[in-house]
Amino acid sequence: MKKISSAVVKRLPRYYRYLDELMENNVERISSGELSRMMNVTASQIRQDLNNFGGFGQQGYGYNVKHLHDEIGKILGLESEYRIVVVGAGNLGQALANYPNFVRRGYHIIALFDKNPEIIGKKINECEVLDVVHLVDYIESKKVDIVALTLPKEQATLVAKDLAKSSVRAIWNFAHTDLDLPDNIIVENVHLSESLMRITYKLSELED
Amino acid sequence: MKKISSAVVKRLPRYYRYLDELMENNVERISSGELSRMMNVTASQIRQDLNNFGGFGQQGYGYNVKHLHDEIGKILGLESEYRIVVVGAGNLGQALANYPNFVRRGYHIIALFDKNPEIIGKKINECEVLDVVHLVDYIESKKVDIVALTLPKEQATLVAKDLAKSSVRAIWNFAHTDLDLPDNIIVENVHLSESLMRITYKLSELED
Repeated sequence: MKKISSAVVKRLPRYYRYLDELMENNVERISSGELSRMMNVTASQIRQDLNNFGGFGQQGYGYNVKHLHDEIGKILGLESEYRIVVVGAGNLGQALANYPNFVRRGYHIIALFDKNPEIIGKKINECEVLDVVHLVDYIESKKVDIVALTLPKEQATLVAKDLAKSSVRAIWNFAHTDLDLPDNIIVENVHLSESLMRITYKLSELED
Repeated sequence: MKKISSAVVKRLPRYYRYLDELMENNVERISSGELSRMMNVTASQIRQDLNNFGGFGQQGYGYNVKHLHDEIGKILGLESEYRIVVVGAGNLGQALANYPNFVRRGYHIIALFDKNPEIIGKKINECEVLDVVHLVDYIESKKVDIVALTLPKEQATLVAKDLAKSSVRAIWNFAHTDLDLPDNIIVENVHLSESLMRITYKLSELED
């Protein structure tokens, strides 16, 4: 597969989201100008980025939405199916298990784990909540690809120690801490407090 | 206040998080070398970044943790108090209302809003769930600073139209769409699907 620059890769999920919406609305072709207005990005940036994927017709004829959508989806690994478990079946874990668009993209949340006996055994959106003591065995037997951690930081740090020795390939970390993991495990952090600090930074800047 | 470069500002929430942990553990001083090992950033990067804030003692004596923590907190606007409401009292909205560290940082979630009569009137972590038809009036009378949108995209788009005409200053958007808002409203997006796509991109890259 042709190598795409990392700056372009960073923008791909957003292109994918817009192309997905266009497909939902049965739009078959779109010009870089129209896409530029929708996405609030310059048309020349769009042309440069999307040139990587070919598949656009003659000048003035616009992009084939489905072709671009599928090509970008391939780059983003969305042609594969992924087995995901969520550790921490609180509100945030349940929100992930209930997320409506995941299955469509090939993201299958197959179980949740928790240590609270009151929630173990319950079902959330058809996923059973299992005892976290069985997490590593489950990862190995079910070939889990991604573990989402929706736990307080102290517990996430403990669970990460077990995960470091498991065959899991990626961790989606929502805990308010950086995890200590081997380099071969992919980690994507979602630090909500940091996101909120970016807002308050901008608000306080306005007041200066 | 001295102008800090935007590259440094981007890194500040992470410094703040580490300094916060050091304070929790009663650490009073730390060298750039120790901080470098903890944060997995070069010591020279740390020295360059933190030079912006002064307040570090003599060579070899290390940084004063509390001083740095408080200076960075000021830049991030954490000396002020913020009134936040959450629109969408589902799992994700409830997760935000239950987030333990928010109050300590000056983030006060003062109400949730929903359109579902079964949840309106309930209390989540002492916050009442109100009818979303009263959202704009509430924003004006309570001087709400930040609105978090934890709604499906179609509903978020509708609510954003009302917010565009209100006095709210910032929107923390969790809906899977970009909102059309005037430039004077700060928008911070948390697009969870895009975060997951960054994982699957890296996973599929490994397989190439």
